[in-house]
Amino acid sequence: MKRSPFAPDSLPELPPLKGVRLAAAEAGIRYKNRKDVLLVLLPEGTAAAGVLTQSRTRSAPVEWCAAQLGHGRARALVVNSGNANAFTGMRGKEAVETTVRMAAQAAGCAAQEVFVASTGVIGEPLDAGKFAGVLDRLAGEAREDGFADAARAIMTTDTFAKLAARTAEIGGVTVTLNGIAKGSGMIAPDMATMLGFLFTDAPVGRSALQALLARHTATTFNAITVDGDTSTSDTLLLFATGTATERGAPRIETADDPRLADFSRALHDLMHELALAIIKDGEGVSKIMTIHVEGAETDAAARRIALSIANSPLVKTAVAGGDANWGRVVMAVGKAGEAADRDRLVIWFGDILVAKDGMRAPDYSEAAASEHVRGREIVIRTDVGTGGPGRATVWGCDLTPEYIAINADYRS
Amino acid sequence: MKRSPFAPDSLPELPPLKGVRLAAAEAGIRYKNRKDVLLVLLPEGTAAAGVLTQSRTRSAPVEWCAAQLGHGRARALVVNSGNANAFTGMRGKEAVETTVRMAAQAAGCAAQEVFVASTGVIGEPLDAGKFAGVLDRLAGEAREDGFADAARAIMTTDTFAKLAARTAEIGGVTVTLNGIAKGSGMIAPDMATMLGFLFTDAPVGRSALQALLARHTATTFNAITVDGDTSTSDTLLLFATGTATERGAPRIETADDPRLADFSRALHDLMHELALAIIKDGEGVSKIMTIHVEGAETDAAARRIALSIANSPLVKTAVAGGDANWGRVVMAVGKAGEAADRDRLVIWFGDILVAKDGMRAPDYSEAAASEHVRGREIVIRTDVGTGGPGRATVWGCDLTPEYIAINADYRS
Repeated sequence: MKRSPFAPDSLPELPPLKGVRLAAAEAGIRYKNRKDVLLVLLPEGTAAAGVLTQSRTRSAPVEWCAAQLGHGRARALVVNSGNANAFTGMRGKEAVETTVRMAAQAAGCAAQEVFVASTGVIGEPLDAGKFAGVLDRLAGEAREDGFADAARAIMTTDTFAKLAARTAEIGGVTVTLNGIAKGSGMIAPDMATMLGFLFTDAPVGRSALQALLARHTATTFNAITVDGDTSTSDTLLLFATGTATERGAPRIETADDPRLADFSRALHDLMHELALAIIKDGEGVSKIMTIHVEGAETDAAARRIALSIANSPLVKTAVAGGDANWGRVVMAVGKAGEAADRDRLVIWFGDILVAKDGMRAPDYSEAAASEHVRGREIVIRTDVGTGGPGRATVWGCDLTPEYIAINADYRS
Repeated sequence: MKRSPFAPDSLPELPPLKGVRLAAAEAGIRYKNRKDVLLVLLPEGTAAAGVLTQSRTRSAPVEWCAAQLGHGRARALVVNSGNANAFTGMRGKEAVETTVRMAAQAAGCAAQEVFVASTGVIGEPLDAGKFAGVLDRLAGEAREDGFADAARAIMTTDTFAKLAARTAEIGGVTVTLNGIAKGSGMIAPDMATMLGFLFTDAPVGRSALQALLARHTATTFNAITVDGDTSTSDTLLLFATGTATERGAPRIETADDPRLADFSRALHDLMHELALAIIKDGEGVSKIMTIHVEGAETDAAARRIALSIANSPLVKTAVAGGDANWGRVVMAVGKAGEAADRDRLVIWFGDILVAKDGMRAPDYSEAAASEHVRGREIVIRTDVGTGGPGRATVWGCDLTPEYIAINADYRS
């Protein structure tokens, strides 16, 4: 598979988080000569928050996580690639139960403290027996510097591993936030993205953690789309070990506590970077698009219009071809089903005004607009003219023959 | 451009309809050496019904037609290809007014009795001055056997002309229904399709005509999708001259009059054939898909699920690759936002049961399913398991590299 042109030259080094230990191995789920199972051990007292797919056909691991988020205590995370354990009926549920039982034994915790995620082919039974022995061994090998290996083990059609880190101050004490993610196709908002796992030593209570995660998901993982197809398996989990209390950080229980402001900003930045990394590795991507919509009736309306543009095959192919075809943006605004005033619509490509007052801008320059669209990072901005306060930003990518090549034979 | 593999070997001959006279010419709107303007003259007493795009950015010609459908009297139709006269502001409205004024003079009728439709590039001003003289000449040349020429003149990225005819009995008298259509990309339901024009000599009143057209649009033109992108210009018009009264056909004013049953059936069949012709000429098409959904809560829910499957890039690319990837059908059901019971979901590819009770069918044969998907006409059927009465059928096509090639440089 061709590497994304946005792939970084090297992977960032993530700092260790006390008590967060990771290891990956080859369990032979589907891939050959590639690590495909990850175990993360978490220290006692770790709080978990999560955002899961809204799909009506969600996978067995997603259902398990939803049940455990009720109590929000976590001691281990198991992730496999190659098989999504989705649409696998009773056998899927049994595979999850087998996995968490083995992981609980390896980690020395209760089964309910194990979180699981699976990604890969839908509808194939997952043979959890392949984890026998493997999880025990990983528990012995797990190390605090295992993030890069972990990010690689959860990849499917990804062409680069996705890792990022941030720091924040809480009560004068520096805390760290690390994150890994995977995702390349079957990426659409309305949930978290494929898989994302965030870790921090900040002593933040479960409900505050959940509130911050949900708030920032709306503008990060829920604001990206590769192909408008929503996965059965989307899982975004945030684990807070609280070990920074040892260094004097205060314990915080509510999301709106002003002492969390810097942590909240850092969490947003981390999520934004990982979400964008998924777009930059969108299947077959050659260009990425940022879509800003303003002047809509509500933020929700602006978001639907932005997604209508970002998911339009005709907009995406025009961008792939370097064609400043803003008429297709008009079309995509029109079909979104939200209020828009055609005769007050304004469209910019980058900084170039291409249309206003319901027609092409008087001093429109096709050459200037084309130059922007021939670049690698395309910005499309539109004021849809209702005069309302609604605005939203969404990120997407172009649609290329490589996307089709990847997906016409992904299973074979 | 590569011809669709579904293109017919020859065009059907449409029978003449008394007083319906057609002619096409080169007005040089955009294409070279191709007829791009069509004039149809209609006899006095012709009633018009229409279904128009629901886009919030609809074109000036669509707005003109919407205004004239209020009275529903028609004497002429002007259609041009190469320029959609959409998002052209006040100049677009003026171009329509110039066109209908010239056409009214040529046809000897009121401007309000002229219907117009334009298809092609969005956002470029249409120079209606190019019709000067042309429409007059066409009025002189118009003939009752001009349907094939007419169907060709309205094409844009179409690779074959779309014509069909039916007959029906009304009160023991045979009436004829002729239709032409165009459309290949920017095709999605929720309105009529790109352009379709239907003509009949049946003496059916305007409100009955409108009711029948709207009823059958739901299951024909509104049940197809090439790329999920809704045009600014979709226009479907039905003209009834009523000349069959001369041969003794009764005049009928209400859609539910039992004497209209056969006419209604014939109208549905005609619309179905033309709608399917558009799918068979979908941009870059190599395979067509029929999606049946049942067991949904309502027909509307079933339709949304069927469209979610038909528009999914991952389903469409799997079909293009001949991959029986039914896990993507599970995904598309899940993302549709409508009620579905994952653990009672049933999926068939053709006659082959591939999944039931929330997992792969026990006797599933990958070889048999693959053989079906390697064919040219793919049938996907799913019972989404709510136990409700909702059902719907939608038609679509695959997503191929040719679609991208066509749309990455359509304007240039």
